[in-house]
Amino acid sequence: MNTTGQLLRLSVFGESHGPVIGGVLDGVPAGMPIHAEVIQRRMDERRPGTSKQVSARDEADAVEILSGVHEGRATGAPLAFLIRNQDVRSQDYDALRNIPRPGHADLSEHWWSHGHNDPRGGGHRSGRLTAPMVAAAALVAPLLEAHGIQASAELVQAGDAANDAEAMAAAIETARANQDSIGGLVRFEATRVPSVLGDPMMDGMGSRLGQLLFAIPAVKGVSFGAGFEAVAMNGSDHNDGYRMDGDRIRFETNHAGGVLGGRTTGQPLWGHVAFKPASSIAQSQHSVDLEAGTDVDVAVKGRHDPCIAVRGVPVVRACLELALADFLLLAAAQGHVDALPW
Amino acid sequence: MNTTGQLLRLSVFGESHGPVIGGVLDGVPAGMPIHAEVIQRRMDERRPGTSKQVSARDEADAVEILSGVHEGRATGAPLAFLIRNQDVRSQDYDALRNIPRPGHADLSEHWWSHGHNDPRGGGHRSGRLTAPMVAAAALVAPLLEAHGIQASAELVQAGDAANDAEAMAAAIETARANQDSIGGLVRFEATRVPSVLGDPMMDGMGSRLGQLLFAIPAVKGVSFGAGFEAVAMNGSDHNDGYRMDGDRIRFETNHAGGVLGGRTTGQPLWGHVAFKPASSIAQSQHSVDLEAGTDVDVAVKGRHDPCIAVRGVPVVRACLELALADFLLLAAAQGHVDALPW
Amino acid sequence: MNTTGQLLRLSVFGESHGPVIGGVLDGVPAGMPIHAEVIQRRMDERRPGTSKQVSARDEADAVEILSGVHEGRATGAPLAFLIRNQDVRSQDYDALRNIPRPGHADLSEHWWSHGHNDPRGGGHRSGRLTAPMVAAAALVAPLLEAHGIQASAELVQAGDAANDAEAMAAAIETARANQDSIGGLVRFEATRVPSVLGDPMMDGMGSRLGQLLFAIPAVKGVSFGAGFEAVAMNGSDHNDGYRMDGDRIRFETNHAGGVLGGRTTGQPLWGHVAFKPASSIAQSQHSVDLEAGTDVDVAVKGRHDPCIAVRGVPVVRACLELALADFLLLAAAQGHVDALPW
Amino acid sequence: MNTTGQLLRLSVFGESHGPVIGGVLDGVPAGMPIHAEVIQRRMDERRPGTSKQVSARDEADAVEILSGVHEGRATGAPLAFLIRNQDVRSQDYDALRNIPRPGHADLSEHWWSHGHNDPRGGGHRSGRLTAPMVAAAALVAPLLEAHGIQASAELVQAGDAANDAEAMAAAIETARANQDSIGGLVRFEATRVPSVLGDPMMDGMGSRLGQLLFAIPAVKGVSFGAGFEAVAMNGSDHNDGYRMDGDRIRFETNHAGGVLGGRTTGQPLWGHVAFKPASSIAQSQHSVDLEAGTDVDVAVKGRHDPCIAVRGVPVVRACLELALADFLLLAAAQGHVDALPW
Repeated sequence: MNTTGQLLRLSVFGESHGPVIGGVLDGVPAGMPIHAEVIQRRMDERRPGTSKQVSARDEADAVEILSGVHEGRATGAPLAFLIRNQDVRSQDYDALRNIPRPGHADLSEHWWSHGHNDPRGGGHRSGRLTAPMVAAAALVAPLLEAHGIQASAELVQAGDAANDAEAMAAAIETARANQDSIGGLVRFEATRVPSVLGDPMMDGMGSRLGQLLFAIPAVKGVSFGAGFEAVAMNGSDHNDGYRMDGDRIRFETNHAGGVLGGRTTGQPLWGHVAFKPASSIAQSQHSVDLEAGTDVDVAVKGRHDPCIAVRGVPVVRACLELALADFLLLAAAQGHVDALPW
Repeated sequence: MNTTGQLLRLSVFGESHGPVIGGVLDGVPAGMPIHAEVIQRRMDERRPGTSKQVSARDEADAVEILSGVHEGRATGAPLAFLIRNQDVRSQDYDALRNIPRPGHADLSEHWWSHGHNDPRGGGHRSGRLTAPMVAAAALVAPLLEAHGIQASAELVQAGDAANDAEAMAAAIETARANQDSIGGLVRFEATRVPSVLGDPMMDGMGSRLGQLLFAIPAVKGVSFGAGFEAVAMNGSDHNDGYRMDGDRIRFETNHAGGVLGGRTTGQPLWGHVAFKPASSIAQSQHSVDLEAGTDVDVAVKGRHDPCIAVRGVPVVRACLELALADFLLLAAAQGHVDALPW
Repeated sequence: MNTTGQLLRLSVFGESHGPVIGGVLDGVPAGMPIHAEVIQRRMDERRPGTSKQVSARDEADAVEILSGVHEGRATGAPLAFLIRNQDVRSQDYDALRNIPRPGHADLSEHWWSHGHNDPRGGGHRSGRLTAPMVAAAALVAPLLEAHGIQASAELVQAGDAANDAEAMAAAIETARANQDSIGGLVRFEATRVPSVLGDPMMDGMGSRLGQLLFAIPAVKGVSFGAGFEAVAMNGSDHNDGYRMDGDRIRFETNHAGGVLGGRTTGQPLWGHVAFKPASSIAQSQHSVDLEAGTDVDVAVKGRHDPCIAVRGVPVVRACLELALADFLLLAAAQGHVDALPW
Repeated sequence: MNTTGQLLRLSVFGESHGPVIGGVLDGVPAGMPIHAEVIQRRMDERRPGTSKQVSARDEADAVEILSGVHEGRATGAPLAFLIRNQDVRSQDYDALRNIPRPGHADLSEHWWSHGHNDPRGGGHRSGRLTAPMVAAAALVAPLLEAHGIQASAELVQAGDAANDAEAMAAAIETARANQDSIGGLVRFEATRVPSVLGDPMMDGMGSRLGQLLFAIPAVKGVSFGAGFEAVAMNGSDHNDGYRMDGDRIRFETNHAGGVLGGRTTGQPLWGHVAFKPASSIAQSQHSVDLEAGTDVDVAVKGRHDPCIAVRGVPVVRACLELALADFLLLAAAQGHVDALPW
């Protein structure tokens, strides 16, 4: 139902080529300060049109707050916000009305909606819908800040170039030049995370964060700590041992990624997110004409991201922050953190 | 809140060393047949005590239905069920009251509960709580069957032995002999899946299935289709092209793993799940005494799984089935599948 | 969390004196037609400024659809909409910043928000927030229509004048002239309701409709069928007997109000809603100055409704329709009604 | 989905003539003491077989806790509990397999379940399912106690006898002697309620408590404060004025019933609940034979309650307590009450 969270609930709406996209964020603590310039700075990290490495679509991505804020602070009432779609070139998509773009959700969306979907730019299934997720995370950033939490994400691999920014940039440029795209790997980490954030099982930190991250259209894999590398490890190596450090407990390693049994351990919360190559490429690809029932080849025109993971970085961070913020409110209900940290 | 699903909701309760574990499954369609022997057969796939490769704990794992069934069919009322804990050796854990086992959730559970947790065998955080998930999936198996869906899971790697059953068995045996444990990789697949199961974004198939799979205590990674391998792929290779096959649309490949934009494409739904090595090992490990505030070394006695992924296989399958069943009910509400398939 | 419904979910946002109010309606069936003029007609029934019997605040209450509609039909994606606040006279409320108006939620809102609420006109607690409920119901009216359901509501008592339109109008006029307000009783009824809409217990029709109706700020009582009059009845009179009528079952009476055990019986769904007198009156009343900590007398300036139940009528109807629409979608999932009725 | 609450969630399961009824209560604060004898005392207030005024069905209604409690305190894990059905005389219902009892949910339940319901004693639709609600409230009573809240309910009218215990008893006895039943009116009140419990609109105290109360099978009306009497009042009389009382704010009256805008005001939370006459009466009534399609007259054998409101009193109190407990946890998340009150 396009909504996530237990005490901090986010609903996202809009279409790639509609007038606006936006969201409703419910459960924001009354009194939390709202800093417009910080929010915009966060939006700028994700928005297109800023370099050759990302789509040329030109969007200011200004966040207009409609409700829930009074005199610079959250009132605790639902906080609705809009982001206008400005640089919409729907004509790019006119030719694609009946031709599902490979790798996109066009075909399942067409079937699901009994043919009543908005096909322009992926409609509600577009990656553009991650902008409200970033806006929502930016809005609640003061909550994490007040608890001292720092969340970050970074691109650590692009195509087959790993851990070297220049090599990654070169790989992206090659993909762009080839009218192709490449995948990317994003590492996320939150430090100074209070322990015991998360409920068990389906409402654990892994489950909730996994749910949020898989909501990003191009994400095909999520892992925590050692993740898939844990498969080839021994328990005696993987288990994170404990030692006393004065009167505090020190974790000797953090293969768990800061989460055990669904709850944070107080260690850095880290993991990886795998982005597939962007589906929109200018090369000719195999598709079909849904009306004519014939094979067609299609080259997706428009403005593309050669490595969508680049713009996925702030979205991953946003998911991390949204999950943390929701669980912080729950932890306050359980007496673990201060309900009014500022 | 230990509950998952939208129209088919599962709540799980119990502790590893309490009298029972169990669940409440709400939303089962009235009239669905209940086959006790099929359910037990499914339970047997997961239960311990059946071979040297798994824990020696001896549990019949018989499912007792308490409500929601009348004359062999679901009534549509909440279906509550119990599984009794029989072979409980809590004395194995007496010595561990104040000593958190590395890799387990003991420490965060102790903190979270303000010291009021049930520490025996991991309490509610135990892998034993996956038994009700398997039971729930077995209960709704007739729904998937009636829609023709077949779901499966298999171990494809144990430690560093991949895709070779004998090598995997040898690796597990070596780990057992070394009083150690190894991780495992499980591949899941559902075939004959109707298209358009899943809602967008946070309620998409990826999000919901990811949420369920990360609820399994030892799971540290989840991927769909090409998953993490998509990072190094080009879009021109990764995108699954379409061709007409008579009057049907054929997907030339299925790198997406059968899900695009949160909805199934009608192609096989497949992916991988990474299990860490079981945390309980008999080797001595670093821990601390929470009361004394001192370093201690601990060897976890009891009956262990040298490769917990072995018993994770039917749990992964169960998660797959639960997600599919829930979305089937939703698809009926949207006119995509038959609401009364039998 | 300002959200209601299971398969049709409505979130409402905005403040009485903010720039807009609005809502997000999620779960609207793809393909459902959207008729702007019908929606506006429904809004006009509730909007102020139309007669002497209602507040003089002049609002067009035009519904702007932001998402979820394409070429005149719902796409199935979240349907967000706005209603602009035009005739805002916030200066009327400047003097009331620290003076809670008796009968309003000002005081609890001030406490709850730790002083960060928007105090102008009741903020998010205003009756103005019922406008998005009416808009949402108008949007999904075609779903009820396609199933043949007719929902209505009417004022049957105003103050002590009952069941006589002229007497009620006179009572309202007297209240207005006296700078006072009176309560009102609204009767609701839905006919041609399919049987078995509703889940048992907390998700029954009574519970869900009760929840929605008590969300209307001035509502202080809700009853179904004979309601409070059933207290003084005998079972032998109250029970609705059955007789065969050809091959159909006829209910001899309908004291139950069309709902038994949480599910509709196929008989008309009817009941009553009690509205208190509007809290805003121009007479002087006892209040306090929250800052000074002194007694003050306050006369609420601004534009008032002498009988808020008059404008509550379309809101009651909207609640009835929203509950019915949500349960219709659920009934389709259960094979009781057609999922695609048009 | 038979579940209620946001941070304290109750699921109820079972059938009147199945082996057990029970519930799962999720969200109980870790460390809350569990007092078996207090719980049983609360169960005894509702259980049948205790006097001539109530059904002769003999049930001990002992609450067996299955999970979530360790060494006398809640662990915070889901608390599952059972109540065994002992005095089941299903043969009383054999003759009624195809004959829906007037006033009961038999007919809609038969239709809804496509004929697969458990017809014995109303199955899952029975008033017996209110026992788990009482058990759940008794379990969380220490939470309310720790916050100083006192919740109560009492019968104030039986049939047409009001506010006089002897007259009410006589009216009930007359109904019993006549093989008939009468309705009843229950007044509830909670004192020392903290202010600002409740969220706005659909999640306000009125909405949530209304939802819970309408889940009680025989309830046909719910009101808060002056309730339906507010219809005939003027705003100048109904509005509760404020005066300073030292440095505290005193409410001059409490017509609102302690709730404004969905939130408690700190005044006593009070209202009324209308119970219809019990549907099961020994008199002959009009029904039909669903199989034969013919009219039949039916006298419901078995053990009946001449005034079900008598046993509804502790259920009303339980609903009040469950709503308060859930909102207390939310209020802790918002910094209004102590998260760890004991």
